[in-house]
Amino acid sequence: MEFSSKLLENAVYEMSQLPGVGKRTALRLVLHLLRQPESQTHHLTEALNTMRDTIKFCKKCHNISDVELCEICSNPNRDASLVCVVEDVRDVMAIENTSQYRGLYHVLGGKISPLDGVGPQDLNIYSLIDKAKSGEVKEVIFALSSTMEGDTTNFYIYRQLEAYDIKTSTIARGISVGDELEYADEVTLGRSILHRIPFENSLKS
Amino acid sequence: MEFSSKLLENAVYEMSQLPGVGKRTALRLVLHLLRQPESQTHHLTEALNTMRDTIKFCKKCHNISDVELCEICSNPNRDASLVCVVEDVRDVMAIENTSQYRGLYHVLGGKISPLDGVGPQDLNIYSLIDKAKSGEVKEVIFALSSTMEGDTTNFYIYRQLEAYDIKTSTIARGISVGDELEYADEVTLGRSILHRIPFENSLKS
Repeated sequence: MEFSSKLLENAVYEMSQLPGVGKRTALRLVLHLLRQPESQTHHLTEALNTMRDTIKFCKKCHNISDVELCEICSNPNRDASLVCVVEDVRDVMAIENTSQYRGLYHVLGGKISPLDGVGPQDLNIYSLIDKAKSGEVKEVIFALSSTMEGDTTNFYIYRQLEAYDIKTSTIARGISVGDELEYADEVTLGRSILHRIPFENSLKS
Repeated sequence: MEFSSKLLENAVYEMSQLPGVGKRTALRLVLHLLRQPESQTHHLTEALNTMRDTIKFCKKCHNISDVELCEICSNPNRDASLVCVVEDVRDVMAIENTSQYRGLYHVLGGKISPLDGVGPQDLNIYSLIDKAKSGEVKEVIFALSSTMEGDTTNFYIYRQLEAYDIKTSTIARGISVGDELEYADEVTLGRSILHRIPFENSLKS
């Protein structure tokens, strides 16, 4: 693409550094900003800069937070003996939306992925082990996505926790509620049969 | 969506004001910026601010430019008697890429669209009429998209230019090069038959 302006080219280039945004999409977004009042661009850039420069992470669960200790960790009504291990803030939001979980979280900030150069030291794993050492935690629930990286991360943490008297569990994999069996993939369907639960338990919720 | 941080929520809100970017995509983009070094966010916001605040439009053709008179308008090798009317800078880039056009452009900045509240006074139409008055222009080529708004805009300009001794033309609509006839839509195929050209002419390029 040949641009008639260096300023435009530079803005498109920076915009296209975002994941899933190609050159054409970037140009469309940038031209949109040019057609809008200047204030829209200023609001956007100020919001991004302020967020990037001043955002805090909860010192206990590493979730994004505006204060030292996030709302969930500082809530006395939540069960501090239960810790759910998730990848990032989106997973916390998804689980909170279900209103089914009353424990705390531990946000890893990623998954172990040697191909991308992400090792255990790049994630918030050691602080989880420290929590385990303290004796406060009774059960750790793994809620990472079931990919190779997720499974690797689960297993790494599992091995680290073995030394302590802590129950570990993983969220149930199976057919989604409302899904037709015939369209489910074989691995999921296979697991849902292997890990079947007593019928009475399914009546509870 | 419930956010654990006002800063995050604000950044996601501003990001989701961009066209085609929903709340979920905005959150994904913002979290990506949080994982990257701060410099990436600063480069992005600076590029956007600089562009929005200091970008110029060519005083002759209204194309985006870093200088008063854009490269195309200031090129003495281009035919100033030929003016191609387009909607925005993307159309200029697309036509320039063909290397088939040696005239100048006139960027309208949109199309007449009463439903969106865009009238002739919101577009760069009067400066086109001024060009026509000056006697410099011999032919005006309409290259707007063939939607109702595009056709309306073409016709409006056509009526304004009638008073002057200027040839008007519109880019050819027809079956794309390499396309199969059976998959073409009826309107396009119909027009391509109606506006057929002498066979010898098709051998030229």
